Amino acid sequence: MRFDLETRYPDYDTKGHVNNAVYLTYFEVARNRVWVAMGGGADFGFVVAEATVRYMSQARIGDPLDIEIRTSDVRNKAWVWTYRITNTHSNALVAEGSTVQVMYDYEARQSIPVPDALRGQLSDL
Amino acid sequence: MRFDLETRYPDYDTKGHVNNAVYLTYFEVARNRVWVAMGGGADFGFVVAEATVRYMSQARIGDPLDIEIRTSDVRNKAWVWTYRITNTHSNALVAEGSTVQVMYDYEARQSIPVPDALRGQLSDL
Amino acid sequence: MRFDLETRYPDYDTKGHVNNAVYLTYFEVARNRVWVAMGGGADFGFVVAEATVRYMSQARIGDPLDIEIRTSDVRNKAWVWTYRITNTHSNALVAEGSTVQVMYDYEARQSIPVPDALRGQLSDL
Amino acid sequence: MRFDLETRYPDYDTKGHVNNAVYLTYFEVARNRVWVAMGGGADFGFVVAEATVRYMSQARIGDPLDIEIRTSDVRNKAWVWTYRITNTHSNALVAEGSTVQVMYDYEARQSIPVPDALRGQLSDL
Repeated sequence: MRFDLETRYPDYDTKGHVNNAVYLTYFEVARNRVWVAMGGGADFGFVVAEATVRYMSQARIGDPLDIEIRTSDVRNKAWVWTYRITNTHSNALVAEGSTVQVMYDYEARQSIPVPDALRGQLSDL
Repeated sequence: MRFDLETRYPDYDTKGHVNNAVYLTYFEVARNRVWVAMGGGADFGFVVAEATVRYMSQARIGDPLDIEIRTSDVRNKAWVWTYRITNTHSNALVAEGSTVQVMYDYEARQSIPVPDALRGQLSDL
Repeated sequence: MRFDLETRYPDYDTKGHVNNAVYLTYFEVARNRVWVAMGGGADFGFVVAEATVRYMSQARIGDPLDIEIRTSDVRNKAWVWTYRITNTHSNALVAEGSTVQVMYDYEARQSIPVPDALRGQLSDL
Repeated sequence: MRFDLETRYPDYDTKGHVNNAVYLTYFEVARNRVWVAMGGGADFGFVVAEATVRYMSQARIGDPLDIEIRTSDVRNKAWVWTYRITNTHSNALVAEGSTVQVMYDYEARQSIPVPDALRGQLSDL
């Protein structure tokens, strides 16, 4: 899934660049978009266990950005999403990264296997 | 260097946990503290090239947190800082991670070698 | 001007409601949208001198929101924008407020009169 | 109650000033500090009904700031807190404002009278 990012003025730091922490929020925007598209509700049913971002080029205020999210691995209780953020004006890769999600039962407070239906949806992404 | 983190109410998400992206802000708070202590000014003279966070246990609202920042590697133009965030009440490790910094000349818009004086300070951290 | 707001997961607090400070960011999103539409560039040419928000009903995670921004007053060096944020599902008014903007010359570091061309655009909003 | 604010790098915008929305977060930090000092728990037992900020002078990166919070009015179900944020280096007033809080029963989902014990604590602030 690939879509335009709606940036906000507070995303930018004193240099006029998107702040490094905000990329994890952009990744979260993509996760949320995917999760809702999969019928998962506005809130999440998983926890994030690990996140990595590589900053490739600077996104300046006014630069149009999009994000692509793909599933790169599905395990028993977890899966990996990878992200690519691109400047759609220059086509420059701005940042890429990945997050590991663990399926989580918030009531029982424990990780659980990825349900089969979700596994299929994840594999198709 | 190790010091207490001052959390804020918007750091917490709908589950009452620190949001995943906020940990990169906590890392930045630590970088800023170190940078100022090294005489580097309130603003930064480097760019962050990569960041990784591993979420080990959930930090809930009210949990007292501290952060430890250490230098784990110093290269020609870059260095690595590692972070550990701990719940000081339970002693649980909440998150750990690392960032790669590249020394950067914002006027010339290019990376530059780490100055010797800074290299020494980094190695002592 | 009226348009849909793109909410983000970190906008919500531990109660599952949009955090009170985030409404000022929503107002800023609207200002930015208007400013760019007026040809003003991605960055701002004014300072905000005052802001008021009245919280009318709670916006919960998943609630679709839109924002309307209108000019309510144009003075010599300043103008007032008013905002209404609505839940587009229930039609409930979520928040309303206003901000006072002062035209500002960032190089000369002083307030300046609102240019005539901008004055016309503001009055039409 | 008056105490130093711990600013964060993402608080600053592209001009190097504290972003306008962040002041509401600073007010919230003060509310939280007061609420915990009054024995109210890390989470809140009230809703914010209205907030106003007047921006008096610009807080630049590196400027040391403190905040003072006082109760200016206690009504049957609500009370008003006022805030003053000062640059402790120059003694300049940076921002001032107020918020109206309504005592709220989150289970019953309705406003309730301010308990007498809290009323006394509020009046002493």
